[in-house]
Parts: sequence; structure tokens; C-alpha cells
Amino acid sequence: MADSEQPMMQSGRKCVPHGEGGAGCAVLVVGSIALDSVQTPFGAVQEVLGGAAVYAAAAASFYAPVRMVGVVGTDFPREHLQQLQQWDIDISGIEVREGETFRWSGYYEYDLNQAHTISTHLNVFEGFRPELPRSYRATPYVFLANIDPELQLAVLDQVEQPRLSVCDTMDFWISGKRGALLEVLGRVDVALMNDAEARQLCDTPNLVQAGRRILEMGPRAVVLKKGEHGAAMFTGNGHFAAPAYPLAGVKDPTGAGDSFAGGLVGYLAYTDDFSDENLRKAIICGSVVAAFNVEDFSLERLARVSSDEIVERYRELRAITDFGSM
Amino acid sequence: MADSEQPMMQSGRKCVPHGEGGAGCAVLVVGSIALDSVQTPFGAVQEVLGGAAVYAAAAASFYAPVRMVGVVGTDFPREHLQQLQQWDIDISGIEVREGETFRWSGYYEYDLNQAHTISTHLNVFEGFRPELPRSYRATPYVFLANIDPELQLAVLDQVEQPRLSVCDTMDFWISGKRGALLEVLGRVDVALMNDAEARQLCDTPNLVQAGRRILEMGPRAVVLKKGEHGAAMFTGNGHFAAPAYPLAGVKDPTGAGDSFAGGLVGYLAYTDDFSDENLRKAIICGSVVAAFNVEDFSLERLARVSSDEIVERYRELRAITDFGSM
Repeated sequence: MADSEQPMMQSGRKCVPHGEGGAGCAVLVVGSIALDSVQTPFGAVQEVLGGAAVYAAAAASFYAPVRMVGVVGTDFPREHLQQLQQWDIDISGIEVREGETFRWSGYYEYDLNQAHTISTHLNVFEGFRPELPRSYRATPYVFLANIDPELQLAVLDQVEQPRLSVCDTMDFWISGKRGALLEVLGRVDVALMNDAEARQLCDTPNLVQAGRRILEMGPRAVVLKKGEHGAAMFTGNGHFAAPAYPLAGVKDPTGAGDSFAGGLVGYLAYTDDFSDENLRKAIICGSVVAAFNVEDFSLERLARVSSDEIVERYRELRAITDFGSM
Repeated sequence: MADSEQPMMQSGRKCVPHGEGGAGCAVLVVGSIALDSVQTPFGAVQEVLGGAAVYAAAAASFYAPVRMVGVVGTDFPREHLQQLQQWDIDISGIEVREGETFRWSGYYEYDLNQAHTISTHLNVFEGFRPELPRSYRATPYVFLANIDPELQLAVLDQVEQPRLSVCDTMDFWISGKRGALLEVLGRVDVALMNDAEARQLCDTPNLVQAGRRILEMGPRAVVLKKGEHGAAMFTGNGHFAAPAYPLAGVKDPTGAGDSFAGGLVGYLAYTDDFSDENLRKAIICGSVVAAFNVEDFSLERLARVSSDEIVERYRELRAITDFGSM
């Protein structure tokens, strides 16, 4: 989508703790853009901005310039696109196709860890074939949100030797497109998935075994998302256990994993450093952004978060996990 | 049980990182002593040493002298009592009653997080009324393992102003003896339970809310055990998130929570310091001992663990959770 409007940065939103000293590499985000209808014990919303690529891009944009690839229908509200641009997200890779935007409808009960799908209408997303604008092809950081692994491979074929590529996935592809998924895992640098997906992929209930096996499939780092229990990373150098930020007031968990991923990749791009030490910091940055995201519906909370709030929660997570030597 | 044998310390077992500088306070442990028959995907054992008080006492004995209160039948193997004595555990508070020892039989499937009970025969444990030997009454640290909260109260009535008291509990008492349990929570210093029990007790799926509400019930610290996800502590000063030691080879999870509790209380008694900072260290000590415990059936692994191994895993947990500032 060509758009003549210039991105307007919201003052105080960009989280640049290193000041302008950050490398400031851009992040490519490919995935779904949706209109979600969600009900939780704390409220309900109809046809609000959602989709894995949107949550990931919004989260990454706290740290780095973002380039999005996705598809929407002609019914997609123009103000949503403007909102993305305000967050320093390049939307020229978002295709507008005749038809309706992807819609997801679901609810969460008392146990917010479990999403219940009411309906999924792929609409224009069904025929989605990611096509990268020429200006995107040399983007140094690439995040492949949860889409068909064959499409993830098609994106990897179009980018020019990115410095770091990261993929997410889901149970549906693990069972239905295992071959293509294994090919993706053999090509990306960092594999993300949740704990249940890792157990499914490796056919073991033991997460430590699962993490190590996925590492053998190719990525240099495996990051397992565990919701309220935090995240775990496996690399050739060892193990990292990250806490979740302790939240008493979760309102809507939709997009938690996607915003975690976006915050993680955004921080890596901002620092242009994917040492183990910096991957750990990036995971904490992802946790912090995800913790804000679930405090309200859709992108409402992420639209209000300031850089100071992010830095403050990061500090709190350090205090929360600190313990001395025996 | 009076016994003329002197405790024999196993060389290298006591974990005294502060050297003889530790306060070395004793720990009173009250709870079940059992003969367990357990099957997991990794093997099966028949009528082996078990019970919450046994796992907790064995774990605490790495750090502190332990005094046990419990009951066994006349069929209880003498070598088990000798084993406890070898671990510096005073067994003079273990009553031998005419009849059979408490027996539990259960199995774990693929998902080791879920115990399936085949049978529970309380036997002599049914009429258990804890009676503290006079020599036990001034024990400064008290651990009330998971038993009827009315019995926990009876123990609290018999001890003389302990420096710190800690209780565990389970779903059965939360639903069946809520009043007595709330009275216990109003009298102990530290409340331990697992995450599902905390959610049940507070009728909320949110663990952070649950932890804070239990804190309001009286204890100065609430420690929630989350199995493979570690533990969380809530105090008036804030929150602590502790990882579990990453284990690829869990063989039998029986006693994980009890050995965690024992390690925690044992370390507190050894150091005689229950500041928030030291409570955090104690939780890590509990995690380390629990991680050894589940590597084999019954008390097999704890019987072999050396002080050096404990110190090494403690160090590893520090490395596993470490991350720098943003």
C-alpha cells in the first residue's frame, strides 16, 4: 500500500535505552492481519485490530523500525493502517485485496490460558502469498509469524541474507505440514513456539528434552513461550529461564505470544547483537511488552505504553529474579 | 522410638557452604511416613520408603539436624529407620504402633506432572495424633507437612514459640477442612502449596492474585510450587520468581514438593535468617534438592547426593537466570 503520509512518531514511545547509539536495524514482520471479536470475563470487543503480524509489529516498533507484509480486505478500516504508521511501521508491504479481511472470533473463560475459537474466516488471507516489496528485501531482521510454513519458506526465498531470522509456528502446522516446518527450522536462526507445541513437535512431555531436540533441527536458539510461567531459551551454550512479569490484572491474553516475539526481535534489531547475553535481554524485553499487551483488549494498552514504563518493568524483572550466592 | 544408636553422618553429605559458621538450628518435621509402590514410564518400585515427612526430613538434613514426628506400623523395615538416623535425623518422635504402615500406590503416565492414585491405605496413620517428645518442644524451626490441618494446629499448640513455622497442605483439606486450614494459615510464618491448590483456595485462576490473597490470610511469606515451572514467592516486600532446575531425565516425581519444602526449611534453619533475601536463597536450595530427588525412585538419589553437587546446581541456577540491564 503506497501512502503519502509520513510516519508520525509518538513522543516517548520508542524505547531506546542506549540512546541513539542503538544500531536501529529494521525488522520485517510477515503474518496475519485480522479483525478480532473477543470475549473474556472482563469484557468483550467486536472486530478490533488484531492478527499475529499486527501484535508482533506493534511490539517490535518500541525498539526498531518495522516493515510489515500481510493482506487485508477492502473493508479494513483506514484508521488501523494510520495507527500502524504512527508506530513507525512501514505498511507498503500490506496488500489490499478485494474482499473481506481475515476475521477471528473467540472467547476465554475463567482460565485465561485457554482460547476457545468460535469462528475463523480466512477471507482474503486464504489466498495470501507474501510478496516482498523490493525495498524490503535487504531487511536485516526477519520475523516469520505463525503462518503456513510453506509461506514462511517463500519469504526466506525472497530476503537477501538477513542477519537474523526468527520463526513462530502452531500445532496446526506441526501436525499438518511437518515436512515444510522442519525445513523452516533448518533455515532460521531462532525458533519460537509455546511449550505445548514443543512437546507436540518432539513427542515428549519433557520441555528440556524438547528444547534440546529442536536445537538439533537447526536453529542456533530455541525460545519456548510458557505464558504465565515465562519463557525458556536453549542454545549451544546453555539454558536460560525467564520469568513472566507477575500480573494480577490480565484482561485479554490475545496476542501475548506475538507481542512477546515482536518485542524480542525488535530489541535484537535495535541492538544488532545476537550473542547469548543479548538474546537473554531480548527475551526479557519481549516479556515486558507482552505483559503490557494483555492488560487490555486489542492493541489498546500497547498504544499507551511509554518507554519509561518498559524500562521500569524490565528493572522490576531483574529484581524479581535476583538471588544471592549460597 | 528410643534408639541407642548414634547418628552417623555421611561424609560429604552435609551442605554447609558457610562452614561451621551456620547457626545450625534444628528443624522439626511432622507428617506422613509411608511405604510407596510407584510406577512411571521409567520403572516401578514396590513398598519403598516414602511419605511427605520422610522426603522433607531427608531434604532438610542436607543443611540442618532434623527431628521427625510420625507414625509407622510394626511392619516398618528397621533399615529405613537406620537410614534416617544416618542422615542426622532424630527419630525419637516416630511412634511405632501395632498394625501396618501407611501405604500409597500410584502411577505416572507419559505426563509426569500428574500422579494417579491406585490405592491409599492409611492403616496406623489413620489414628495419628502427633505427640511431641519433650526434647522436641523448643525446636526453633517447624515444618508441618501436608496432613489434616487440625493435626497441624495440635503441633503448633505443642511447640514453644518457634522462630519460624512453615506449613504445606493439599486440595483435600482446602475443600474439606477449610476452617482449620485458615486457622493454620493465620498462625504459620510461611505457607507453601502448589499452584493448583493456591488457585483452588482463592477461587481465582490468577496466581499473582492468589499469592497476594494467601498473604492476607496471615503468613509473612507465601511460596507457590509450580513443578517444572519453578516456584514463586510473595511477601510484603514483593515478588520472587524462581526457576526449576532444567532436568531432561525425571524418573519419578514422587516427593518433589516435599523435598523442595525440606530443603527450603533446612537452609533457613542452617542460616537462622528469614529475611526476604535469605528466603530467596532457601527457595533455590529447595529447588536444587527437589531436582535431585526426582532423578530416581524413592530416596535413592537423595541418598547419594553430595554437598558439592548441591553447591554446583545452585551455581548453575544463578547462571541460568542471569540477565543484564537493558
